[in-house]
Amino acid sequence: MKPGIPKATVERLPRYLRCLEQLPGRQTTVSSTELARLSGMNSAKVRKDLSFLGSYGVRGVGYNVLDLAGQIRRELGLTEDRRIVVVGIGNLGSALAAYGGFENRGFTVVGLYDADPSKIGTKIDGHEVRSTASLAEDAKTLDVTVGIITTPAAVAQDVADQLVDAGVPAILNFAPALLNVPTGVQLRQVDLATELQILSFYMDQTDAG
Amino acid sequence: MKPGIPKATVERLPRYLRCLEQLPGRQTTVSSTELARLSGMNSAKVRKDLSFLGSYGVRGVGYNVLDLAGQIRRELGLTEDRRIVVVGIGNLGSALAAYGGFENRGFTVVGLYDADPSKIGTKIDGHEVRSTASLAEDAKTLDVTVGIITTPAAVAQDVADQLVDAGVPAILNFAPALLNVPTGVQLRQVDLATELQILSFYMDQTDAG
Repeated sequence: MKPGIPKATVERLPRYLRCLEQLPGRQTTVSSTELARLSGMNSAKVRKDLSFLGSYGVRGVGYNVLDLAGQIRRELGLTEDRRIVVVGIGNLGSALAAYGGFENRGFTVVGLYDADPSKIGTKIDGHEVRSTASLAEDAKTLDVTVGIITTPAAVAQDVADQLVDAGVPAILNFAPALLNVPTGVQLRQVDLATELQILSFYMDQTDAG
Repeated sequence: MKPGIPKATVERLPRYLRCLEQLPGRQTTVSSTELARLSGMNSAKVRKDLSFLGSYGVRGVGYNVLDLAGQIRRELGLTEDRRIVVVGIGNLGSALAAYGGFENRGFTVVGLYDADPSKIGTKIDGHEVRSTASLAEDAKTLDVTVGIITTPAAVAQDVADQLVDAGVPAILNFAPALLNVPTGVQLRQVDLATELQILSFYMDQTDAG
Protein backbone atom coordinates (compact mmCIF):
# COMPACT_ATOMS: atom_id res chain seq x y z
CA MET A 1 0.00 0.00 0.00
CA LYS A 2 1.45 3.33 -1.03
CA PRO A 3 1.31 6.38 1.19
CA GLY A 4 -0.56 9.33 -0.24
CA ILE A 5 1.61 10.87 -2.92
CA PRO A 6 -0.28 13.91 -4.23
CA LYS A 7 -1.78 13.52 -7.70
CA ALA A 8 0.13 16.55 -9.00
CA THR A 9 3.41 15.01 -7.80
CA VAL A 10 2.61 11.69 -9.51
CA GLU A 11 2.05 13.59 -12.75
CA ARG A 12 5.50 15.17 -12.51
CA LEU A 13 7.45 12.01 -11.67
CA PRO A 14 7.66 10.83 -15.33
CA ARG A 15 9.15 14.20 -16.24
CA TYR A 16 11.86 13.96 -13.57
CA LEU A 17 12.59 10.40 -14.67
CA ARG A 18 13.02 11.43 -18.30
CA CYS A 19 15.42 14.21 -17.28
CA LEU A 20 17.46 11.79 -15.17
CA GLU A 21 17.60 9.29 -18.04
CA GLN A 22 18.88 11.96 -20.40
CA LEU A 23 21.77 13.09 -18.19
CA PRO A 24 25.23 12.11 -19.48
CA GLY A 25 26.14 8.59 -18.32
CA ARG A 26 29.20 9.82 -16.40
CA GLN A 27 27.12 12.16 -14.20
CA THR A 28 26.53 10.44 -10.86
CA THR A 29 24.76 13.19 -8.88
CA VAL A 30 22.25 15.89 -9.70
CA SER A 31 21.22 18.93 -7.64
CA SER A 32 17.60 19.95 -7.20
CA THR A 33 18.52 23.19 -9.01
CA GLU A 34 19.75 21.31 -12.09
CA LEU A 35 16.80 18.92 -12.06
CA ALA A 36 14.50 21.93 -11.74
CA ARG A 37 16.09 23.64 -14.72
CA LEU A 38 15.89 20.50 -16.89
CA SER A 39 12.29 19.76 -15.95
CA GLY A 40 11.02 23.34 -16.05
CA MET A 41 9.99 23.32 -12.36
CA ASN A 42 11.35 25.40 -9.51
CA SER A 43 13.81 23.72 -7.18
CA ALA A 44 11.65 24.01 -4.05
CA LYS A 45 8.90 22.08 -5.87
CA VAL A 46 11.41 19.43 -7.00
CA ARG A 47 12.67 18.92 -3.45
CA LYS A 48 9.11 18.76 -2.13
CA ASP A 49 8.02 16.26 -4.80
CA LEU A 50 11.00 13.99 -4.20
CA SER A 51 10.51 14.17 -0.45
CA PHE A 52 7.26 12.23 -0.95
CA LEU A 53 9.41 9.35 -2.22
CA GLY A 54 11.58 9.62 0.89
CA SER A 55 14.40 11.16 -1.19
CA TYR A 56 16.03 14.19 0.37
CA GLY A 57 19.41 14.45 -1.37
CA VAL A 58 22.60 15.57 0.34
CA ARG A 59 23.22 19.25 0.98
CA GLY A 60 25.82 20.61 -1.47
CA VAL A 61 25.87 17.31 -3.40
CA GLY A 62 22.35 16.56 -4.51
CA TYR A 63 20.74 13.26 -5.39
CA ASN A 64 22.41 10.08 -6.63
CA VAL A 65 21.17 9.82 -10.23
CA LEU A 66 20.82 6.04 -10.43
CA ASP A 67 19.24 5.70 -6.99
CA LEU A 68 16.73 8.42 -7.67
CA ALA A 69 15.80 7.06 -11.12
CA GLY A 70 15.35 3.60 -9.58
CA GLN A 71 13.18 5.00 -6.82
CA ILE A 72 10.92 6.84 -9.28
CA ARG A 73 10.65 3.73 -11.49
CA ARG A 74 9.64 1.60 -8.51
CA GLU A 75 7.13 4.20 -7.37
CA LEU A 76 5.55 4.34 -10.83
CA GLY A 77 5.47 0.55 -11.03
CA LEU A 78 7.77 0.60 -14.08
CA THR A 79 9.79 -2.30 -12.77
CA GLU A 80 6.83 -4.59 -13.39
CA ASP A 81 6.00 -6.01 -16.78
CA ARG A 82 3.08 -4.11 -18.28
CA ARG A 83 1.56 -5.71 -21.37
CA ILE A 84 -0.12 -3.31 -23.76
CA VAL A 85 -2.32 -3.63 -26.84
CA VAL A 86 -2.95 -0.79 -29.29
CA VAL A 87 -6.37 -0.72 -30.94
CA GLY A 88 -6.71 1.43 -34.06
CA ILE A 89 -3.63 1.35 -36.27
CA GLY A 90 -3.90 4.68 -38.07
CA ASN A 91 -1.03 7.16 -37.96
CA LEU A 92 -1.17 7.67 -34.22
CA GLY A 93 -1.60 3.97 -33.43
CA SER A 94 1.33 3.16 -35.73
CA ALA A 95 3.45 5.82 -34.05
CA LEU A 96 2.67 4.38 -30.61
CA ALA A 97 3.21 0.79 -31.78
CA ALA A 98 6.70 1.69 -32.97
CA TYR A 99 7.48 4.10 -30.10
CA GLY A 100 10.85 3.22 -28.62
CA GLY A 101 10.13 4.94 -25.32
CA PHE A 102 7.81 2.24 -23.96
CA GLU A 103 9.95 -0.86 -23.81
CA ASN A 104 12.72 0.58 -21.64
CA ARG A 105 10.09 1.68 -19.11
CA GLY A 106 8.60 -1.74 -18.51
CA PHE A 107 5.87 -1.64 -21.16
CA THR A 108 5.74 -4.38 -23.77
CA VAL A 109 3.51 -4.19 -26.83
CA VAL A 110 1.78 -7.58 -27.10
CA GLY A 111 -0.84 -6.87 -29.75
CA LEU A 112 -2.02 -4.46 -32.44
CA TYR A 113 -5.63 -4.39 -33.66
CA ASP A 114 -7.54 -2.76 -36.48
CA ALA A 115 -10.90 -3.25 -38.19
CA ASP A 116 -9.59 -2.39 -41.68
CA PRO A 117 -8.97 -5.61 -43.71
CA SER A 118 -6.19 -3.87 -45.67
CA LYS A 119 -4.22 -3.38 -42.44
CA ILE A 120 -4.82 -6.81 -40.91
CA GLY A 121 -1.78 -9.01 -41.44
CA THR A 122 0.64 -6.11 -42.00
CA LYS A 123 3.51 -5.70 -39.53
CA ILE A 124 4.71 -2.75 -37.48
CA ASP A 125 7.98 -3.03 -35.64
CA GLY A 126 7.68 -6.83 -35.79
CA HIS A 127 4.08 -6.95 -34.50
CA GLU A 128 1.38 -8.25 -36.81
CA VAL A 129 -1.86 -6.27 -36.94
CA ARG A 130 -4.79 -8.50 -36.03
CA SER A 131 -8.54 -8.09 -36.52
CA THR A 132 -10.45 -6.30 -33.76
CA ALA A 133 -12.88 -9.22 -34.05
CA SER A 134 -10.34 -11.31 -32.14
CA LEU A 135 -9.54 -8.58 -29.57
CA ALA A 136 -11.85 -9.77 -26.79
CA GLU A 137 -10.60 -13.35 -26.96
CA ASP A 138 -6.92 -12.37 -27.34
CA ALA A 139 -7.00 -9.88 -24.47
CA LYS A 140 -7.77 -12.70 -22.04
CA THR A 141 -5.03 -15.06 -23.20
CA LEU A 142 -2.43 -12.28 -23.62
CA ASP A 143 -2.96 -11.10 -20.02
CA VAL A 144 -3.16 -7.48 -21.19
CA THR A 145 -2.60 -4.82 -18.53
CA VAL A 146 -3.21 -1.67 -20.60
CA GLY A 147 -5.37 -1.14 -23.67
CA ILE A 148 -4.48 1.94 -25.75
CA ILE A 149 -7.36 3.20 -27.88
CA THR A 150 -6.43 5.17 -31.03
CA THR A 151 -9.58 4.47 -33.05
CA PRO A 152 -11.99 7.06 -34.45
CA ALA A 153 -14.23 8.53 -31.72
CA ALA A 154 -17.34 6.73 -32.96
CA VAL A 155 -16.07 3.24 -32.08
CA ALA A 156 -13.96 4.07 -29.02
CA GLN A 157 -16.64 3.17 -26.45
CA ASP A 158 -17.26 -0.17 -28.16
CA VAL A 159 -13.54 -0.98 -28.04
CA ALA A 160 -13.40 0.08 -24.38
CA ASP A 161 -16.32 -2.23 -23.58
CA GLN A 162 -14.54 -5.15 -25.23
CA LEU A 163 -11.35 -4.44 -23.26
CA VAL A 164 -13.29 -4.18 -20.00
CA ASP A 165 -15.20 -7.40 -20.72
CA ALA A 166 -11.89 -9.15 -21.33
CA GLY A 167 -10.70 -8.03 -17.89
CA VAL A 168 -8.16 -5.41 -19.01
CA PRO A 169 -7.65 -3.26 -15.87
CA ALA A 170 -6.48 0.01 -17.45
CA ILE A 171 -7.28 2.03 -20.57
CA LEU A 172 -5.44 4.93 -22.15
CA ASN A 173 -7.74 6.71 -24.59
CA PHE A 174 -6.43 8.97 -27.36
CA ALA A 175 -9.76 9.04 -29.23
CA PRO A 176 -11.62 12.35 -28.85
CA ALA A 177 -14.54 10.76 -26.97
CA LEU A 178 -15.42 10.65 -23.29
CA LEU A 179 -15.58 6.99 -22.30
CA ASN A 180 -17.52 5.24 -19.56
CA VAL A 181 -15.84 2.40 -17.73
CA PRO A 182 -16.87 0.60 -14.55
CA THR A 183 -15.36 1.57 -11.20
CA GLY A 184 -12.13 -0.30 -10.70
CA VAL A 185 -10.97 0.13 -14.27
CA GLN A 186 -8.33 2.87 -14.56
CA LEU A 187 -9.00 5.26 -17.42
CA ARG A 188 -6.89 8.14 -18.66
CA GLN A 189 -7.88 10.40 -21.52
CA VAL A 190 -5.13 11.97 -23.64
CA ASP A 191 -5.77 15.03 -25.79
CA LEU A 192 -2.95 15.83 -28.20
CA ALA A 193 -4.04 19.47 -28.26
CA THR A 194 -3.53 19.86 -24.49
CA GLU A 195 0.15 20.71 -24.66
CA LEU A 196 -0.47 23.21 -27.45
CA GLN A 197 -3.08 24.92 -25.29
CA ILE A 198 -0.74 25.13 -22.30
CA LEU A 199 1.98 26.51 -24.57
CA SER A 200 -0.53 29.03 -25.88
CA PHE A 201 -1.21 30.31 -22.35
CA TYR A 202 2.47 30.98 -21.70
CA MET A 203 2.92 32.66 -25.09
CA ASP A 204 0.33 35.22 -24.11
CA GLN A 205 2.19 35.88 -20.89
CA THR A 206 5.39 36.49 -22.87
CA ASP A 207 3.55 38.85 -25.23
CA ALA A 208 2.15 40.80 -22.32
CA GLY A 209 5.31 40.87 -20.25
CA MET B 1 -1.12 41.17 -18.33
CA LYS B 2 -2.58 38.10 -16.69
CA PRO B 3 -2.75 37.73 -12.94
CA GLY B 4 -0.85 34.78 -11.54
CA ILE B 5 -2.78 31.66 -12.38
CA PRO B 6 -0.88 28.73 -10.82
CA LYS B 7 0.99 26.51 -13.28
CA ALA B 8 -0.92 23.42 -12.11
CA THR B 9 -4.23 25.18 -12.76
CA VAL B 10 -3.13 26.18 -16.27
CA GLU B 11 -2.31 22.54 -16.99
CA ARG B 12 -5.84 21.48 -15.97
CA LEU B 13 -7.72 24.14 -17.97
CA PRO B 14 -7.50 22.23 -21.31
CA ARG B 15 -9.04 19.21 -19.56
CA TYR B 16 -11.99 21.21 -18.24
CA LEU B 17 -12.46 22.76 -21.68
CA ARG B 18 -12.55 19.36 -23.37
CA CYS B 19 -15.15 18.12 -20.87
CA LEU B 20 -17.30 21.20 -21.46
CA GLU B 21 -17.03 20.76 -25.24
CA GLN B 22 -18.17 17.16 -24.97
CA LEU B 23 -21.31 17.88 -22.94
CA PRO B 24 -24.58 17.41 -24.86
CA GLY B 25 -25.47 20.60 -26.79
CA ARG B 26 -28.74 21.01 -24.89
CA GLN B 27 -27.00 21.15 -21.49
CA THR B 28 -26.70 24.80 -20.46
CA THR B 29 -25.27 24.52 -16.94
CA VAL B 30 -22.78 22.21 -15.24
CA SER B 31 -22.10 21.75 -11.54
CA SER B 32 -18.59 21.57 -10.12
CA THR B 33 -19.43 18.02 -9.04
CA GLU B 34 -20.27 16.94 -12.58
CA LEU B 35 -17.24 18.73 -14.05
CA ALA B 36 -15.11 17.06 -11.38
CA ARG B 37 -16.44 13.62 -12.26
CA LEU B 38 -15.90 14.15 -16.01
CA SER B 39 -12.38 15.50 -15.57
CA GLY B 40 -11.24 13.11 -12.87
CA MET B 41 -10.63 15.88 -10.31
CA ASN B 42 -12.36 16.53 -7.01
CA SER B 43 -14.98 19.25 -6.95
CA ALA B 44 -13.16 21.48 -4.44
CA LYS B 45 -10.17 21.57 -6.80
CA VAL B 46 -12.44 22.38 -9.76
CA ARG B 47 -14.03 25.29 -7.88
CA LYS B 48 -10.64 26.57 -6.76
CA ASP B 49 -9.17 26.33 -10.30
CA LEU B 50 -12.10 28.14 -11.86
CA SER B 51 -12.02 30.83 -9.19
CA PHE B 52 -8.65 31.92 -10.63
CA LEU B 53 -10.55 32.81 -13.81
CA GLY B 54 -13.04 34.80 -11.77
CA SER B 55 -15.69 32.09 -12.30
CA TYR B 56 -17.61 31.12 -9.19
CA GLY B 57 -20.77 29.51 -10.51
CA VAL B 58 -24.16 29.84 -8.83
CA ARG B 59 -24.99 27.78 -5.74
CA GLY B 60 -27.36 24.94 -6.62
CA VAL B 61 -27.10 25.72 -10.35
CA GLY B 62 -23.44 25.60 -11.30
CA TYR B 63 -21.63 27.26 -14.17
CA ASN B 64 -23.05 28.40 -17.49
CA VAL B 65 -21.45 25.98 -19.97
CA LEU B 66 -20.91 28.41 -22.87
CA ASP B 67 -19.69 31.25 -20.66
CA LEU B 68 -17.23 29.04 -18.85
CA ALA B 69 -15.89 27.48 -22.07
CA GLY B 70 -15.47 30.95 -23.57
CA GLN B 71 -13.64 32.15 -20.48
CA ILE B 72 -11.21 29.22 -20.54
CA ARG B 73 -10.60 29.70 -24.28
CA ARG B 74 -9.81 33.38 -23.76
CA GLU B 75 -7.55 32.59 -20.83
CA LEU B 76 -5.63 30.03 -22.90
CA GLY B 77 -5.38 32.44 -25.81
CA LEU B 78 -7.34 30.03 -28.04
CA THR B 79 -9.37 32.84 -29.51
CA GLU B 80 -6.27 34.08 -31.32
CA ASP B 81 -5.02 32.55 -34.55
CA ARG B 82 -2.02 30.32 -33.86
CA ARG B 83 -0.12 29.18 -36.91
CA ILE B 84 1.72 25.89 -36.57
CA VAL B 85 4.24 23.95 -38.64
CA VAL B 86 4.99 20.26 -38.10
CA VAL B 87 8.56 19.16 -38.79
CA GLY B 88 9.15 15.42 -39.25
CA ILE B 89 6.31 13.70 -41.10
CA GLY B 90 6.63 10.15 -39.82
CA ASN B 91 3.66 8.41 -38.22
CA LEU B 92 3.39 10.84 -35.32
CA GLY B 93 3.88 13.93 -37.49
CA SER B 94 1.26 12.64 -39.92
CA ALA B 95 -1.15 11.98 -37.07
CA LEU B 96 -0.67 15.53 -35.74
CA ALA B 97 -0.93 17.06 -39.23
CA ALA B 98 -4.31 15.41 -39.72
CA TYR B 99 -5.49 15.87 -36.12
CA GLY B 100 -8.96 17.41 -36.12
CA GLY B 101 -8.69 18.69 -32.58
CA PHE B 102 -6.39 21.62 -33.43
CA GLU B 103 -8.39 23.71 -35.84
CA ASN B 104 -11.44 24.22 -33.61
CA ARG B 105 -9.14 25.46 -30.86
CA GLY B 106 -7.57 28.30 -32.79
CA PHE B 107 -4.60 26.39 -34.22
CA THR B 108 -4.08 26.33 -37.98
CA VAL B 109 -1.54 24.04 -39.64
CA VAL B 110 0.36 26.22 -42.14
CA GLY B 111 3.22 23.93 -43.11
CA LEU B 112 4.57 20.36 -43.02
CA TYR B 113 8.28 19.58 -43.41
CA ASP B 114 10.40 16.48 -43.88
CA ALA B 115 13.93 15.72 -45.03
CA ASP B 116 12.96 12.51 -46.87
CA PRO B 117 12.71 13.15 -50.65
CA SER B 118 10.07 10.40 -50.96
CA LYS B 119 7.76 12.36 -48.64
CA ILE B 120 8.33 15.82 -50.10
CA GLY B 121 5.46 16.79 -52.38
CA THR B 122 2.99 14.29 -50.86
CA LYS B 123 -0.13 15.69 -49.23
CA ILE B 124 -1.67 15.15 -45.79
CA ASP B 125 -5.10 16.57 -45.12
CA GLY B 126 -4.63 19.03 -47.96
CA HIS B 127 -1.18 20.21 -46.84
CA GLU B 128 1.82 19.52 -49.07
CA VAL B 129 4.96 18.24 -47.37
CA ARG B 130 7.90 20.57 -48.10
CA SER B 131 11.64 20.10 -47.74
CA THR B 132 13.17 21.03 -44.37
CA ALA B 133 15.74 22.91 -46.48
CA SER B 134 13.09 25.60 -47.00
CA LEU B 135 11.91 25.61 -43.36
CA ALA B 136 13.97 28.57 -42.15
CA GLU B 137 12.90 30.81 -45.03
CA ASP B 138 9.25 29.69 -44.94
CA ALA B 139 8.91 30.13 -41.19
CA LYS B 140 9.54 33.86 -41.56
CA THR B 141 7.04 34.45 -44.36
CA LEU B 142 4.39 32.15 -42.85
CA ASP B 143 4.47 34.04 -39.52
CA VAL B 144 4.63 30.75 -37.62
CA THR B 145 3.69 30.89 -33.93
CA VAL B 146 4.38 27.27 -32.92
CA GLY B 147 6.82 24.74 -34.36
CA ILE B 148 6.03 21.10 -33.56
CA ILE B 149 9.05 18.80 -33.75
CA THR B 150 8.37 15.13 -34.49
CA THR B 151 11.75 14.26 -36.02
CA PRO B 152 14.18 11.60 -34.80
CA ALA B 153 16.04 12.73 -31.66
CA ALA B 154 19.35 13.17 -33.50
CA VAL B 155 18.15 16.10 -35.62
CA ALA B 156 15.69 17.71 -33.17
CA GLN B 157 18.13 20.34 -31.85
CA ASP B 158 19.06 21.34 -35.38
CA VAL B 159 15.40 21.82 -36.30
CA ALA B 160 14.82 23.79 -33.09
CA ASP B 161 17.75 26.08 -33.96
CA GLN B 162 16.27 26.74 -37.39
CA LEU B 163 12.88 27.57 -35.89
CA VAL B 164 14.45 29.89 -33.32
CA ASP B 165 16.56 31.62 -35.98
CA ALA B 166 13.41 32.19 -38.02
CA GLY B 167 11.81 33.91 -35.04
CA VAL B 168 9.29 31.20 -34.11
CA PRO B 169 8.37 32.05 -30.50
CA ALA B 170 7.22 28.61 -29.26
CA ILE B 171 8.25 25.00 -29.75
CA LEU B 172 6.46 21.78 -28.86
CA ASN B 173 8.94 18.91 -28.94
CA PHE B 174 7.82 15.27 -29.25
CA ALA B 175 11.32 14.00 -30.09
CA PRO B 176 12.98 12.15 -27.18
CA ALA B 177 15.75 14.73 -26.82
CA LEU B 178 16.25 17.57 -24.34
CA LEU B 179 16.47 20.78 -26.36
CA ASN B 180 18.17 24.07 -25.61
CA VAL B 181 16.44 27.25 -26.69
CA PRO B 182 17.21 30.87 -25.78
CA THR B 183 15.32 32.63 -22.99
CA GLY B 184 12.13 34.11 -24.37
CA VAL B 185 11.33 31.10 -26.58
CA GLN B 186 8.62 28.92 -25.03
CA LEU B 187 9.49 25.23 -25.08
CA ARG B 188 7.38 22.26 -24.01
CA GLN B 189 8.59 18.69 -24.15
CA VAL B 190 6.01 15.92 -24.67
CA ASP B 191 6.72 12.31 -23.80
CA LEU B 192 4.13 9.87 -25.11
CA ALA B 193 5.05 7.42 -22.36
CA THR B 194 4.14 9.91 -19.61
CA GLU B 195 0.45 9.05 -19.48
CA LEU B 196 1.24 5.32 -19.43
CA GLN B 197 3.53 5.89 -16.46
CA ILE B 198 0.90 7.85 -14.55
CA LEU B 199 -1.65 5.13 -15.33
CA SER B 200 0.85 2.58 -14.08
CA PHE B 201 1.10 4.35 -10.72
CA TYR B 202 -2.65 4.22 -10.17
CA MET B 203 -2.85 0.56 -11.23
CA ASP B 204 -0.49 -0.30 -8.42
CA GLN B 205 -2.73 1.57 -6.01
CA THR B 206 -5.72 -0.45 -7.20
CA ASP B 207 -3.75 -3.69 -6.81
CA ALA B 208 -2.80 -2.74 -3.28
CA GLY B 209 -6.17 -1.37 -2.27
